[in-house]
Amino acid sequence: MKIAFIGLGNMGAPMARNLLKAGHHLHLFDLDTNALAELAAQGGHIKDSARHAAQGSDLVITMLPAAAHVGSAFLGENGILAGIATGTPALDCSTIDPQSIRDIATIAASQGVVVGDAPVSGGTAGANAATLTFMVGGSVQHYERVKPVLAQMGRNIVHCGEVGTGQIAKLCNNLLLGISMIGVSEAMALGHALGIDTQVLAGVINSSTGSCWSSQSYNPWPGIVETAPASRGYTGGFAADLMLKDLGLATEAARLAHQPVLLGALAQQLFQAMSQRGEGGRDFSAIIESYLSRH
Amino acid sequence: MKIAFIGLGNMGAPMARNLLKAGHHLHLFDLDTNALAELAAQGGHIKDSARHAAQGSDLVITMLPAAAHVGSAFLGENGILAGIATGTPALDCSTIDPQSIRDIATIAASQGVVVGDAPVSGGTAGANAATLTFMVGGSVQHYERVKPVLAQMGRNIVHCGEVGTGQIAKLCNNLLLGISMIGVSEAMALGHALGIDTQVLAGVINSSTGSCWSSQSYNPWPGIVETAPASRGYTGGFAADLMLKDLGLATEAARLAHQPVLLGALAQQLFQAMSQRGEGGRDFSAIIESYLSRH
Amino acid sequence: MKIAFIGLGNMGAPMARNLLKAGHHLHLFDLDTNALAELAAQGGHIKDSARHAAQGSDLVITMLPAAAHVGSAFLGENGILAGIATGTPALDCSTIDPQSIRDIATIAASQGVVVGDAPVSGGTAGANAATLTFMVGGSVQHYERVKPVLAQMGRNIVHCGEVGTGQIAKLCNNLLLGISMIGVSEAMALGHALGIDTQVLAGVINSSTGSCWSSQSYNPWPGIVETAPASRGYTGGFAADLMLKDLGLATEAARLAHQPVLLGALAQQLFQAMSQRGEGGRDFSAIIESYLSRH
Amino acid sequence: MKIAFIGLGNMGAPMARNLLKAGHHLHLFDLDTNALAELAAQGGHIKDSARHAAQGSDLVITMLPAAAHVGSAFLGENGILAGIATGTPALDCSTIDPQSIRDIATIAASQGVVVGDAPVSGGTAGANAATLTFMVGGSVQHYERVKPVLAQMGRNIVHCGEVGTGQIAKLCNNLLLGISMIGVSEAMALGHALGIDTQVLAGVINSSTGSCWSSQSYNPWPGIVETAPASRGYTGGFAADLMLKDLGLATEAARLAHQPVLLGALAQQLFQAMSQRGEGGRDFSAIIESYLSRH
Repeated sequence: MKIAFIGLGNMGAPMARNLLKAGHHLHLFDLDTNALAELAAQGGHIKDSARHAAQGSDLVITMLPAAAHVGSAFLGENGILAGIATGTPALDCSTIDPQSIRDIATIAASQGVVVGDAPVSGGTAGANAATLTFMVGGSVQHYERVKPVLAQMGRNIVHCGEVGTGQIAKLCNNLLLGISMIGVSEAMALGHALGIDTQVLAGVINSSTGSCWSSQSYNPWPGIVETAPASRGYTGGFAADLMLKDLGLATEAARLAHQPVLLGALAQQLFQAMSQRGEGGRDFSAIIESYLSRH
Repeated sequence: MKIAFIGLGNMGAPMARNLLKAGHHLHLFDLDTNALAELAAQGGHIKDSARHAAQGSDLVITMLPAAAHVGSAFLGENGILAGIATGTPALDCSTIDPQSIRDIATIAASQGVVVGDAPVSGGTAGANAATLTFMVGGSVQHYERVKPVLAQMGRNIVHCGEVGTGQIAKLCNNLLLGISMIGVSEAMALGHALGIDTQVLAGVINSSTGSCWSSQSYNPWPGIVETAPASRGYTGGFAADLMLKDLGLATEAARLAHQPVLLGALAQQLFQAMSQRGEGGRDFSAIIESYLSRH
Repeated sequence: MKIAFIGLGNMGAPMARNLLKAGHHLHLFDLDTNALAELAAQGGHIKDSARHAAQGSDLVITMLPAAAHVGSAFLGENGILAGIATGTPALDCSTIDPQSIRDIATIAASQGVVVGDAPVSGGTAGANAATLTFMVGGSVQHYERVKPVLAQMGRNIVHCGEVGTGQIAKLCNNLLLGISMIGVSEAMALGHALGIDTQVLAGVINSSTGSCWSSQSYNPWPGIVETAPASRGYTGGFAADLMLKDLGLATEAARLAHQPVLLGALAQQLFQAMSQRGEGGRDFSAIIESYLSRH
Repeated sequence: MKIAFIGLGNMGAPMARNLLKAGHHLHLFDLDTNALAELAAQGGHIKDSARHAAQGSDLVITMLPAAAHVGSAFLGENGILAGIATGTPALDCSTIDPQSIRDIATIAASQGVVVGDAPVSGGTAGANAATLTFMVGGSVQHYERVKPVLAQMGRNIVHCGEVGTGQIAKLCNNLLLGISMIGVSEAMALGHALGIDTQVLAGVINSSTGSCWSSQSYNPWPGIVETAPASRGYTGGFAADLMLKDLGLATEAARLAHQPVLLGALAQQLFQAMSQRGEGGRDFSAIIESYLSRH
């Protein structure tokens, strides 16, 4: 299959690599020429614009940092819509706000192009190992068409509803994740301050009603979960600044919907404080350190 | 075994009943004569004070509403310490602050009586079905002595450390539970407002990093979990006022330890608002209703 | 003086009227033809675009709802920059984010046009009575040039620094105002719940360290300040939805600056809940009602 | 007049000194013998218990750290009620919860003793200079009797209503003060991060709707108000731990009244974090430092 892949950053590059391994013919576009060169060396074909990448492709995939990039990749003078053939499906895997992708899809639909969204979870590790989760928004037909390709980059491909619902699912999940991680941090820090052994406390929580992914698989207290970032100095996981980005998208979507999210907004501020302290590059579970006594 | 059982309310009465069924000889005390009469009809022996209940018992168990009651049950003129024989173990199953039970244990120790704490989770359903979880604080020897009796009232008997750690474990777990439930409520309400199907959203969350007991087993959105209170009008679960009590104990213990708990304190206020609206008797997952648009 | 006035809504119309009264020659532009007609009847000259309004003017003033409108009014094909003469000063009185006006000013500067910002406070009452406060951002020279005209629409003309600082001053003030109003609401509601007379409580606060504009001049408890919206059913003041808009701008500016604003973010959520309940049109001091027991 | 003065700490000692200066005969009691000796050297008479201090006095005043101390000073075996003559007025100037003083007053009333509350604001500086504010709870007659004596220790004597309302007034004011100070801190820190001059920003706020005592007289940004603790390294004002104590009393009173105080509870947690960092002894306006970037 001929696939245009636009956006070859930390996530996009390994995803594209997995498509090359699966035998696809890839049209590549990115502003970073090093990233292009690296994937060309593995068999990809470099194009000089999103438009040229889209021309002649059977599927267009974008993986970009923010809504503004996705907007210009699709709608710009040398963008996808200027090159893509009518009827060709396109899929944005970036994490952006639901409304932006809906707007792009509406414009694309007016020229016969179907755009869906499929934000991912699983991080760079999942991108490399082709074990990502894709939360897919779009029609059932669109979903059926893109699913086999997504399955070559990930393990869990979930259809969430019409275009935009992939983003909604991701934002809502990560809003809850940000809250849960801080909740676990407060519970562990309080238990420690009051004098219970943290290993025992984690055991009680994990067999009880406080149990959650953040306590069970990603506990922020060092040494509780051996494979968690907390046990290796809060490195190599999901950076606090990425959590902050997702919470920003969630609270902004909430604002537009007149939907209050009190704990979510407070969680965002706490990660913002972490970012202000210059710790935005550490794993987000390091938020627990803002709860620990230093003397 | 001769067991003194003091406090025969919604939780204490079924717990005592299970001990009677297991063949123990029970000394009963409560201020409520109806509660006493009911358990006497099932084979228990009524005593006119905690002191007399404790006299000649091999084990003393208390299950009372608040620290003040536990204090006077143990330390009052006609209290347990006035009647209990040296070397007899005592166990408080109430949910109170860790410091109060530590203080009582210290006083008891000075007259050769070992007091432990063992707050429960599982609610009245668990108390009736003898499936409670006991979080036990006290020495290993004390734990070994009381464990067989607790196993006749519950299923999961966890040793948490020295006296007081049972309370700490419970408070920390419930602090996290309160936060998680509100987190799930915000995520579900936001998803709904943005236009994703709530069943789909719950599915995504439960197979992803937002997953927690509150989303998986007790989802606050009606119809997601058939056995959850949300699916039967928020009745018959864990009352918001009980969650409010536990959050109050947790934030008070945090205050004394100079330990900040930002989300925990905010969660407490949100349940307090629910209680102010006269909804404290509903299941705590009804907190989601304060996030839903009414027009 | 020939002044282009673009944006004739609830605020812009009375401001323009005051300039007409002061004897200026006005070029008017708005998409609402009724608004145009009304001011034309009072002596203004209708133009069919921002560009034509700007042509031949000695000063251009904009008063629009949001950054997107200001952007297209200045930068659009038929926008101000397409018509304005080099060296003519322009002033945006809208309340928008600081970065947007800085960006517009940078573009304008490249073609020799100086743009400043001058958001207002005082509401429609202040706009009508020419008693507005203007918080002006721009160079000292620019400030000196626009000041006499602003003085015909307001009473308090404050120079805040370079372009954008007018917006910063307004956002920071209103962030604090939103927090203070909720703080006063919590204090008054708590005092009432505990049994103190609210008139007495307001008196104590206003002669003590809790004193603020929200307690003194705009107390949210009905009957404390006779002229406050609370004493006339929370009508005719500063709508909760406008406060929500300003808090949204403030928290977004804070997000971009990695600056935590915990109470500010929570205040925003509380006004968002008010808006969700359909009460966004009421005066913002009606937030106190969400703190009052209804039974 | 013969006055019993019980509690000679940082506040009590200078208050008692002012009564000695005014010519009263003082019966002194405190557990700290140094404090007693110092005031005896200035003419006071040392007593060995609260009971003996109360005996033969025309008025009894207490100034103690917490409710437990006030309880035992009044109700203990050697307490005030054991020594005071029927009809003698008593006044507690401590800052404690409203319910405790109401309970003590009820017990005292049953033996013909009238107890009122009169917590103060103004700090040790006000205590020394006899410029304290007294918020007095009790009957009108009681108020009229104690007022002349209070006027010898303070400048502003406010009658708030029945016994307990003095405490309510103080707690509500300080709840608002804690919120306002954090609000000002967030506004000033945000303005600084966005690039406005803080002196200009303070000026705008103080002439606008964000104006409050915390911005005007006690601005947390160094150099804005020369006499404020911020301008002398956050020393010598109102310690963060004292603000934390008052917020703890306020949120606890709110909890008992089922009255939500969301911003108040969050403010408490932020001062608790400051206390955890070991900064509880600094002036409470140093809370602004937790909002400032350190790199």
